[in-house]
Amino acid sequence: MELQERLEKVIKEIAAFEYDLEAGKKADLYQHDLIKPKGSMGRLEDVTIKLAEITGDYKYRIDQKDVIVFCADHGFSKYGVSAFHPDVTRQMTMAYLRGDAAANVVAKANGAHVTVVDMGINGEINNPLLINKRVREATDDFTKGPAMSIQEARQAIFAGFEVAEGVIIKGADILAPGEMGIGNTTASSALLAVFANISPEEATGRGSMINDETIERKTDIVRRALKVNQPDRNKPVEVLAKLGGFEIAGAVGAYLACAVYRVPIVVDGFISTAAAMTAKMIAPGVEKVMFSSHQSAEVQHRYMLELLGLKPLLNLNMRLGEATGASMAMQLIQTASRVITDMGTFSGSQVSAAEKNLEMELEKITR
Amino acid sequence: MELQERLEKVIKEIAAFEYDLEAGKKADLYQHDLIKPKGSMGRLEDVTIKLAEITGDYKYRIDQKDVIVFCADHGFSKYGVSAFHPDVTRQMTMAYLRGDAAANVVAKANGAHVTVVDMGINGEINNPLLINKRVREATDDFTKGPAMSIQEARQAIFAGFEVAEGVIIKGADILAPGEMGIGNTTASSALLAVFANISPEEATGRGSMINDETIERKTDIVRRALKVNQPDRNKPVEVLAKLGGFEIAGAVGAYLACAVYRVPIVVDGFISTAAAMTAKMIAPGVEKVMFSSHQSAEVQHRYMLELLGLKPLLNLNMRLGEATGASMAMQLIQTASRVITDMGTFSGSQVSAAEKNLEMELEKITR
Repeated sequence: MELQERLEKVIKEIAAFEYDLEAGKKADLYQHDLIKPKGSMGRLEDVTIKLAEITGDYKYRIDQKDVIVFCADHGFSKYGVSAFHPDVTRQMTMAYLRGDAAANVVAKANGAHVTVVDMGINGEINNPLLINKRVREATDDFTKGPAMSIQEARQAIFAGFEVAEGVIIKGADILAPGEMGIGNTTASSALLAVFANISPEEATGRGSMINDETIERKTDIVRRALKVNQPDRNKPVEVLAKLGGFEIAGAVGAYLACAVYRVPIVVDGFISTAAAMTAKMIAPGVEKVMFSSHQSAEVQHRYMLELLGLKPLLNLNMRLGEATGASMAMQLIQTASRVITDMGTFSGSQVSAAEKNLEMELEKITR
Repeated sequence: MELQERLEKVIKEIAAFEYDLEAGKKADLYQHDLIKPKGSMGRLEDVTIKLAEITGDYKYRIDQKDVIVFCADHGFSKYGVSAFHPDVTRQMTMAYLRGDAAANVVAKANGAHVTVVDMGINGEINNPLLINKRVREATDDFTKGPAMSIQEARQAIFAGFEVAEGVIIKGADILAPGEMGIGNTTASSALLAVFANISPEEATGRGSMINDETIERKTDIVRRALKVNQPDRNKPVEVLAKLGGFEIAGAVGAYLACAVYRVPIVVDGFISTAAAMTAKMIAPGVEKVMFSSHQSAEVQHRYMLELLGLKPLLNLNMRLGEATGASMAMQLIQTASRVITDMGTFSGSQVSAAEKNLEMELEKITR
């Protein structure tokens, strides 16, 4: 099947996605029977209901957690939009393969497995642990024209889709895309400017701690990219091709796969959320399987969350990416899942539930 | 040694507690060398600095996490201040021993071990897993007089101290006290009213989802307890004896032990925070080893956190107790610890750090 046709099929499938409200209701009712005051687990109870609505299983058990880190380079990153040298994308990809980057350490501390995908970094890495989905070596400079062709965007989306599919088939109960690509906060700001219909100034943040001068340069690059490419927000795949990156398109594909397979997916920071927003623009309905992990320190992040209608679970002033916030949030979501799968019930134990008549009974005692 | 003398010795020791600022500075500097942008882990970087300041080890490794659930009953709980029957304290203690309560499930999901302590529940339980530190069966009704004698308060404090000490000796790298005692949000509100010098109305919240009528009764009980006991906030052990509970005093002891042993301790919800506040009133300086886990849905919780000068890591609208929020926060703190112990460094790897000269270099490229 042609990529275009395949994508249209996926979009149609996701448009028809409906929450399993029966399962959600069952999870809600079951929370009443757990030996704790109903509502006392707060947002984690809402999480169990959403897990049920996504998966159709009111006692959805999360055992396997997976992180997929998509890595790629950006043609424009030579302009110095990051505090880091463009070669760092490749260096960090090697760190993910060694296992001593934040992505690995945080995932491991929270019991998640990490898969690393080369979507098109500068310089090929020969390592059996690295999944090779290189579209090509880095995107084109989007201040001169589109970052990639529409066909390449589709190719990158399906590369991400297939990696996520593989991880799901291998037993992932929940997953999270992470990313690495020096310059990709700038690309994300460009996508945000288009999809939220805001100015380059409003859409551009500090990324990895750049200074005032760099932020001006970054804003200027977004401005030039928009001017040259004239993106039309009603053609979201084209917007992604013009302004995105291969790693962002890969993450888009992972979100789509999770919606197709009805597997919950956790959205990480600024760039992953830009990909989530793009996925929603391409295939409305995909956001139904998403959980937002954390509020990024990048203030523009909240515009994206608003577009997605998601409320983050954590707020730790992080700005790292690499699925680090998502790994921690997956742990919280797993905890919520364990509450509903493993706790005792009032009906099944000898614990007295809060009763309507209890207060009257107690009042009698005290009179 | 007499209990009074022993307590004075502990108070003196804690008053002399000083953060290891050298170790904290080392942790801060080391964060600069980790292969991620400095500051990008946000509050978790602050956590590593505090861990260093508490323990003196700038790469403090958290492996073993421990929860101690203190259980006891309250003489006044017969007045119907909770949505639950007083017998539920005993039933829940049995659930902790079975392992299917929220305390256990959440601790296990986050890799923490649970110790259960009977500080004075209604009805003895015969179970080898239960640590028997019963001061006696339930406190006295504090609307008629003091809940316990000052000597009993000291006894309960040292019971908690010794249990925490035992857990620390067995290798706990971080711990969290949890509690169970029907009615203990009311006792906590009474302690808050005294220590924060606010009215019973301001200090009383909804606890485990009680209704308007019950909240009025609860406030009235706090009012009566204060009137009968005339507590003096400058005599904090006496305040604890008059208004507290054996489980609250046990938690106070656990905080004191952690300060003495320089082990980080995580404060759970409303009642655990009331105990933390009481510990600070008794032994100023003890708060230095504390982390606040989460913002409770109980709005009065924030007054306590203000008194302690602590900012919670999580805000999930929870109101459960049983160290559930603390278990999740210990997982976050452990993650922060792993970042500093397990990540690669710029100096030790081939990853290029953000350089001062990088931007100039890059500007040269683009000119």
